[in-house]
Amino acid sequence: MNVLKARILKEGRNLGNGILKVDGFLNHQIDPVLIDACGRELASRFVSARATKVLTAEISGIAPALSTAFHLGVPVVYARRERPVTMPDQVLLTVAPSHTKRHPTELIVSPEYLVARDRVLIVDDFLATGQTILGLARLARAAGATLVGIGAVIEKAFEEGRRTLAACDVPIESLAIVTRMSEGEIELA
Amino acid sequence: MNVLKARILKEGRNLGNGILKVDGFLNHQIDPVLIDACGRELASRFVSARATKVLTAEISGIAPALSTAFHLGVPVVYARRERPVTMPDQVLLTVAPSHTKRHPTELIVSPEYLVARDRVLIVDDFLATGQTILGLARLARAAGATLVGIGAVIEKAFEEGRRTLAACDVPIESLAIVTRMSEGEIELA
Repeated sequence: MNVLKARILKEGRNLGNGILKVDGFLNHQIDPVLIDACGRELASRFVSARATKVLTAEISGIAPALSTAFHLGVPVVYARRERPVTMPDQVLLTVAPSHTKRHPTELIVSPEYLVARDRVLIVDDFLATGQTILGLARLARAAGATLVGIGAVIEKAFEEGRRTLAACDVPIESLAIVTRMSEGEIELA
Repeated sequence: MNVLKARILKEGRNLGNGILKVDGFLNHQIDPVLIDACGRELASRFVSARATKVLTAEISGIAPALSTAFHLGVPVVYARRERPVTMPDQVLLTVAPSHTKRHPTELIVSPEYLVARDRVLIVDDFLATGQTILGLARLARAAGATLVGIGAVIEKAFEEGRRTLAACDVPIESLAIVTRMSEGEIELA
């Protein structure tokens, strides 16, 4: 997706240790037009998967997942990190190691909104180590739902998430693939 | 906004203590078509405010703020509760009492994305006590920016947020106003 790749190369910053700063358009300040284009593209790549629901994790997955869901015409559910008072006592919960937060975080979904008949497309902002997405896949399985695909805006190929997620046995799509980050550089596939 | 009001009356639940459960379409599972309509309506109500930026707070403000920003054609910034590693050391930070979380939370924005020339429209999912929105207004002021409006999807009129925010002296718009919640009922204006 050329518009996204151009934006990463122009505005992204390599902060070292594999940390890619893209908070000017993706995960603090958001460019709504770019996100809409990303959602439209992810939706088009997964249209044959016949998803009934998009699943993501708060916080920064919400924008691309919402846009993808809009273009697919299905609801989106975002896993919470804390159980709000509006959620039932019995929930779907899994623990995922977090690369950026440096401590494991909980992923919580209400069983009201993830059910056995759902065909689930997971969408997140980053595919890095794959641990958050793997956690979301466990939630879908716990609900008895069928995972039908995994989509990410930016993949950091060198963190091997695609290999981690191979066991899910579903199509994986990312809109920009970072192949290498060294000495302040950002290399895209 | 009739489509929103109908949805609140059909699917919303009064959990007592002023807690309105709308997590089937607004803040856990999201209906992207409804949210798009809400954003379009908020954008139309504030078009004359000439906002250059929409400001919201994670988590559940992101979806309506993103949609409003899309229809206004401006970026959206969401205040974080924790400072991520991608943020500079010097940030804009304020503390806001949280009605639903029952402990004060931090609202953090990078000064990279909120600047003196910005005309800021604050958008959130709920206008209740108004404390989160007031915190966002403080962040805008700390950046030297001009607050031009406040928009919410659902206002709980009985929590007096509109009075709290009167000192901001900007137009306040909400798409559905809950006037009373008692004995399991939900009354809309």
